This record gives sequence, structure tokens and C-alpha cells, in this order.
Amino acid sequence: MIALEKIDAIAPKGAGKKAMKAELTALHKRLFALQNVLYAEGKHPILIILQGMDTSGKDGTIKHVFSCINPMGCNVKSFKVPTEEERKHDFLWRIYPHLPAKGMIQIFNRSHYEDILAPYIQGTLPEKMIEERYDFINCFEKQLLSSGTIILKFFLHISKKEQSKRIEARKRNPHKKWKYNKADDKAAENWEAYQTVYGKIIERCSPEIPWHIVPADQKWHRNYYVANCIVKKLEELKLKYPS
Amino acid sequence: MIALEKIDAIAPKGAGKKAMKAELTALHKRLFALQNVLYAEGKHPILIILQGMDTSGKDGTIKHVFSCINPMGCNVKSFKVPTEEERKHDFLWRIYPHLPAKGMIQIFNRSHYEDILAPYIQGTLPEKMIEERYDFINCFEKQLLSSGTIILKFFLHISKKEQSKRIEARKRNPHKKWKYNKADDKAAENWEAYQTVYGKIIERCSPEIPWHIVPADQKWHRNYYVANCIVKKLEELKLKYPS
Repeated sequence: MIALEKIDAIAPKGAGKKAMKAELTALHKRLFALQNVLYAEGKHPILIILQGMDTSGKDGTIKHVFSCINPMGCNVKSFKVPTEEERKHDFLWRIYPHLPAKGMIQIFNRSHYEDILAPYIQGTLPEKMIEERYDFINCFEKQLLSSGTIILKFFLHISKKEQSKRIEARKRNPHKKWKYNKADDKAAENWEAYQTVYGKIIERCSPEIPWHIVPADQKWHRNYYVANCIVKKLEELKLKYPS
Repeated sequence: MIALEKIDAIAPKGAGKKAMKAELTALHKRLFALQNVLYAEGKHPILIILQGMDTSGKDGTIKHVFSCINPMGCNVKSFKVPTEEERKHDFLWRIYPHLPAKGMIQIFNRSHYEDILAPYIQGTLPEKMIEERYDFINCFEKQLLSSGTIILKFFLHISKKEQSKRIEARKRNPHKKWKYNKADDKAAENWEAYQTVYGKIIERCSPEIPWHIVPADQKWHRNYYVANCIVKKLEELKLKYPS
């Protein structure tokens, strides 16, 4: 099992804030251009999965990495606590309608991985059933892969100290207060349990479709890292305007 | 009935390309900031309707006005020729699922107005039934308005000459070729009929929720105009972060 506490949540040495912010601006331009061809070509569906502890910056990543993109070719689905209707179905049922079409970028803000996390933390499912879900998810993602979907999975890795700081900021900053929720404190109390299950997810649901563990204590590094991964992946596809 | 051929499709005198491009950059920043509060406040649903002749720049407007926006708070729905399933329902049936939630910006790339345009041009519905649709649409939009939705309707107004130029460009430019469709030539043949029915739509489906007739022969003017309208409207709302 991956021990997340042994992995740095801060930017590697030598990574400078100013340089990375400038680089992000350049990446925005490349992403904008690449997405244009991706959409025109209509060949590859792109699925981007964002997971991370509360306050790890999932919303912020979407805002700062993708606010350069043509919204016609990009959808965001934020998965919340399952509705009553959704709970009546298999856990992947609510995921399917949001899978990307060819040429589209689909961002999952949280995802089917919540269906391992929540029952593990809350103890609402027998261990055996949670265990099965790892296999179901691997199978599901492989199926998407084999149908041509490009999947990029990012775990936004923050330290416990940084999380406390951010929860405090949410309580105090009038521009952030709307994001504060008592559940944030609750999630903070379960820090260790979350780290354990995330470690297990990252180990078991890789390497075929690997998880990127993103050092995310510094937002400028997190944004750069994610944008860079996506741009690199899109460049590998050798996208072309159709004739 | 509004005579579109008497309305300028070019920018008004004194509007400079360079200045408007710079202004657009400033509008992008304001739009990004305003949308952030709109989303946080979660009070107003925003519906933006784009209509216009083929090649009038609906896609381009989305790309150049909204590629500054957090995609988490913005969805785009492009309405195509109705599917077999959709044709089995009332014409507004396929529209409903895409109406914006509070705090969201929803862009309609084409819309329910196609259900007046297409039957008028193709003669697939008796005149009386087309006539009724004007009233149904007015009633539908008023209902949205009264439930708090902000509706902005843009007709991208281009000249016949500009359309010919753009269809030619689609045929020749390898970056645009993918957008060319034989239907473009067909639509061009029906130029006068389209202008007539658009004139009627603009007259009958205003002024309560007015149509903006956007001089759109020059893309820099079209982008500035649309962005400016939206920013002004959002500023009127006196948006606030919730406490």
C-alpha cells in the first residue's frame, strides 16, 4: 500500500513560483490550441478525474487550469452525495451518462472513487463489497480505455497542516466562506482513515491507468503540474484537423 | 417585421479593431471574476441563446467570448437536427433538460428557435402551427423569466457577402475544412427566406426578452459586443458572495 505521508505535498526543490506561473500561461495557450484540434478531429474522448481530500483544490484546479478552454468542448461533472434515485442503482449507473464523447474533454470533480471512499470511512458497506469495487472500477476503466477513451487521474496531495490552514481560511475569508461546510471539520477528523484508503486506491487502481500524485500544498505548483500532464498527453495524440 | 437587410452587419463608425480587442481582454477578466461570484452566490440562472445564419460565428463567439470562464460554472448545449426520439415529443421537450441551474451559465448554440426556422424553410409544418410556436416560445421564455432566469438572446447578423466569403474559407482553409458541410451551400441559397423568418422572430419574440442584433461581419466587433452585453447584465445583478 502506498504510504502517502511519505510522499511530499510540496513542490520539488528548484520549482519556482514565478517561473511556474509564467509557464502556466504558456500551457494555457497550448491547451487552448490543442483542444481546438481535438474537437475538430472528434476522435478521442478525454476523461480527467480529480480526487483529493477536502480543500485539496479540486475546484481551484478546474478554475485555474481550464479557464482557458473553449467551453463547447469541455464539460464538468461534480459528483455529490448520491441521490435517493442514484442509490437505487449500481454505483456506476450515475457515472455513465457523463462519459465523454469523442473530441470532448470531460472533467470529473470527484468520481466513482467516492464509492470506495465513502463506504470505507462511514462503514456503510461490508469490507468484501468494498474490496470488489476496486476490481469493478479497474474493469470499468479498462473498458473505457479499450474503447479509445484517454483517462487522466489526479490525486491532489496536500498535507494535514495545509488542510487545517485552508479550513481556517474558509471560515474567515468572506470570498471563501460559501465553501465552508461543517463536513470539512468532520473530514479533517478522519484524516488518517482517508489517507489509508487513498493509498490503497492509488496502489490498486494503477498502473495501467496510473494515478498522478500531485504535490498540491502550493496552488501554483498544482496548477502547473496538472496542466503540464494534460498538454503532454494531448501532444502525444498527434492531433490533426480532418480533411 | 424587422428588415434585417436595412440593419448594418458591420461595426459602427469609430469602433476600432485594436481598441476592441484590448477591451475584450479586459472584459474576459471581469467576466471571470463575475462568474466566480455568480457561482458562489448560486442565485441566478443565466441562459445565453445564440442564433444566426450558417457561418455567422456562433461557435466562434463561444470560443472567443467564453474561453476565459471556469468550465465548472458554464455549460454549452449545441442543438442539432432533432433525433428520432426528440421528434416524438413536443418541440420544447428536448430543451428542458438543458436549462441552467441557479449560479450556472448555460449557452444554447442554436435553440428552440430552430423549431420555427427549420419548418418555415423546409415547409414541413402548416403555417398555423408555425404561428403558434411564436406564442409558445414567448410563453416559455416568460415562465423562465418569472422563475428568475436571466435570458440573453443574440442574433449574429452577417451580410450575404460575408457569408459567401466564409463558406469559401471553410472549403479552402485546412483548419476550417472540418466545419464545411454541403448544407452550408443549401442554407446560402435560402438566404432571403432565412432573413425573412429571422426578422419575424426578432420582432415577435421581443421586447420583453429582447433580441440583441449583433453586427457580426467583423469577428472582433461581434466578440466585444456579446462579451460587453453579458458583463453589463451580470454587473446589474449586484452579485455578492454569500456569508
